Amino acid sequence: MTTEPDSADTNETLLGQRWRRHSDAWIDAVRARRIPSRVAVTDQALVDAILDYRPDTLLDLGCGEGWLARRLAPLGIAVTGIDAAPALIDAAREAGGGRFVVAGYDALPPALGSFAMAVSNFALLGKEPVERLLANLPQRLPGGHFIVQTLHPLIACGEQPYRDGWRRDSWTAFSAGVEEPPPWYFRTLESWVRLFGAHGLRLLELREPRAPATGQPASVVFIAAVS
Amino acid sequence: MTTEPDSADTNETLLGQRWRRHSDAWIDAVRARRIPSRVAVTDQALVDAILDYRPDTLLDLGCGEGWLARRLAPLGIAVTGIDAAPALIDAAREAGGGRFVVAGYDALPPALGSFAMAVSNFALLGKEPVERLLANLPQRLPGGHFIVQTLHPLIACGEQPYRDGWRRDSWTAFSAGVEEPPPWYFRTLESWVRLFGAHGLRLLELREPRAPATGQPASVVFIAAVS
Repeated sequence: MTTEPDSADTNETLLGQRWRRHSDAWIDAVRARRIPSRVAVTDQALVDAILDYRPDTLLDLGCGEGWLARRLAPLGIAVTGIDAAPALIDAAREAGGGRFVVAGYDALPPALGSFAMAVSNFALLGKEPVERLLANLPQRLPGGHFIVQTLHPLIACGEQPYRDGWRRDSWTAFSAGVEEPPPWYFRTLESWVRLFGAHGLRLLELREPRAPATGQPASVVFIAAVS
Repeated sequence: MTTEPDSADTNETLLGQRWRRHSDAWIDAVRARRIPSRVAVTDQALVDAILDYRPDTLLDLGCGEGWLARRLAPLGIAVTGIDAAPALIDAAREAGGGRFVVAGYDALPPALGSFAMAVSNFALLGKEPVERLLANLPQRLPGGHFIVQTLHPLIACGEQPYRDGWRRDSWTAFSAGVEEPPPWYFRTLESWVRLFGAHGLRLLELREPRAPATGQPASVVFIAAVS
């Protein structure tokens, strides 16, 4: 079997494999609060966005070790988190705050039910699985909202060409031991907006939480409604 | 009378005054094709966006010397252009291709009628007048579309803080003699999207036409529908 080293299949496979391989490093980085942009800006920006729309039930897509559920549970929001990495779900269950299920984006387990809101915090990292997720998500969100926080494309692009494609970044700023972090699929702002529109998600807001240190956007937060 | 040098009123006044003062320089810059981003990317990007939605009637807000009407007239689109600078409207009328009216954004003349589409090409340059325009525009576009092409905020921001505010740029790249060009009001992407949403305009697309030389967006094109 011949496979292009950078083919989408290879990248999707590596994405999953490496998240499973580096789950412990990730849990440690999040819980030791070693990702400055999350601590300073983006965690709170996501919580603020969620509370502005006050869902009673929330699906956290790519929940990781479950910080969002723990943050929202005391506010009366019932959180279900899914993640494809079993070690992350184990960690989330141990810490509590919600219901946690091992699942990828390709096939949302029917038993999950429906929600007032779905959220993904820097976790829509693949290509086709994300597109299939968006095709299936609206039926789980009758009259509901979908919030995506992700890297701001114009900022995250760096010196590379500003176009969709697989990227390989470094985790060294927060996880020194991780030499081969998961790849992720870069989308331009144009592509993100098209992705929502293609699946009947109406973009209500595009927020740009700013990093105090630079004044530049630390992320972009898309808030969409099922139309 | 005391006036803050950078107050909004002063800037709005300067914006109007300087466009009137520099109308001839502007006509010359556009017609001699001395603004490379327009020639290479943004003129065609706007025409492409318009043709993707195929209006039969179009209101060009801040039409300047009228290039868009001349471009669209042969395609069977009836263009009405408005601009607050009489010398620009005079030049547009002389060149033909549409109906041209001296008018600002504050009060769209009722006699203009309604349109299938309104477009503004790098011409929503003020603050409150633009907001009043968006409040009044949807009633002129029953079931229609609104397309705004403007500087891409993340690119245009340069080294200044990424937040809304008045800016003073240079025209020296295309009009050497213009030492005091009009000020303009910078809006972040978040603010643009909020502005549309606040006035019942549903954002369908956000396009980022790229400059071939840099691969970076040369502009942003918002395509909204009256909802």
